[in-house]
Amino acid sequence: MATTDPAAACVVARALEVIGDRWTALVIRDAFYGIRRFDDFIADLGIARNVLADRLAKLVDAGILAKVAYQERPTRYEYRLTDKGRDLLPVFLTLWRWGDRWYADGEPPVEVQHRTCGHATEAEVVCRECREPLRLRELRVDPIPVRLPSRA
Amino acid sequence: MATTDPAAACVVARALEVIGDRWTALVIRDAFYGIRRFDDFIADLGIARNVLADRLAKLVDAGILAKVAYQERPTRYEYRLTDKGRDLLPVFLTLWRWGDRWYADGEPPVEVQHRTCGHATEAEVVCRECREPLRLRELRVDPIPVRLPSRA
Repeated sequence: MATTDPAAACVVARALEVIGDRWTALVIRDAFYGIRRFDDFIADLGIARNVLADRLAKLVDAGILAKVAYQERPTRYEYRLTDKGRDLLPVFLTLWRWGDRWYADGEPPVEVQHRTCGHATEAEVVCRECREPLRLRELRVDPIPVRLPSRA
Repeated sequence: MATTDPAAACVVARALEVIGDRWTALVIRDAFYGIRRFDDFIADLGIARNVLADRLAKLVDAGILAKVAYQERPTRYEYRLTDKGRDLLPVFLTLWRWGDRWYADGEPPVEVQHRTCGHATEAEVVCRECREPLRLRELRVDPIPVRLPSRA
């Protein structure tokens, strides 16, 4: 057995632990749509109240949503994306594109309009430096150090 | 209750069902590193053989890896990324960037070098049309039709 847990060490695995459950993913998606209030999540998702409460609490714990009072007497709360939550947008845009391409079953793709340029857009992942699309064969990734299992 | 299951209807949720388990994510990550053989996954991940066999079978079922004989007598197999699997690269690059930013705990980020331009790079998500970075406030997403729960 490996002495450390590579699954815990990999930031990709850690990120997926936070967003990798499908109800959690849908709550984040709804937050990107602008939904903030408990009953609006319920209405949009048809999710059970206890399941929604659980997922919202986990997303607040993870720092992806912030619970903010929007009314006093009685106090009512809404759930707003934090900077960390908004920073998930590229992940969701690329997941959307992959899902649309491979799991759409003939349904039309999610249409994302880029209001700045007016086009229906798709997310494209490019190199920050040269702005060209990133292709696997053109990348060199420094692997996370290999932890060889001791074969005792 | 909603009559349809919105979690099943959302392509993001469907995509996460396939890659959302952390061992699965690590197997795909290793495939991006160029690892193809059972014992090499074992050596890199320190994963139990039965867990690895299960995840590889699921990834073959999902069409993300292909099981290909690379030797006869005895027949030996390796696992190669399919087109669908390689198409996950943007998802992993954006997850990596998000995980590095929010879960690195002081560890250095994964370094990805773009050999075409020679720079250490980060994935950036841009509009396919105007090539500008996509920001949430500049997007309009046509939401997946709301399925209102019947409150019987």
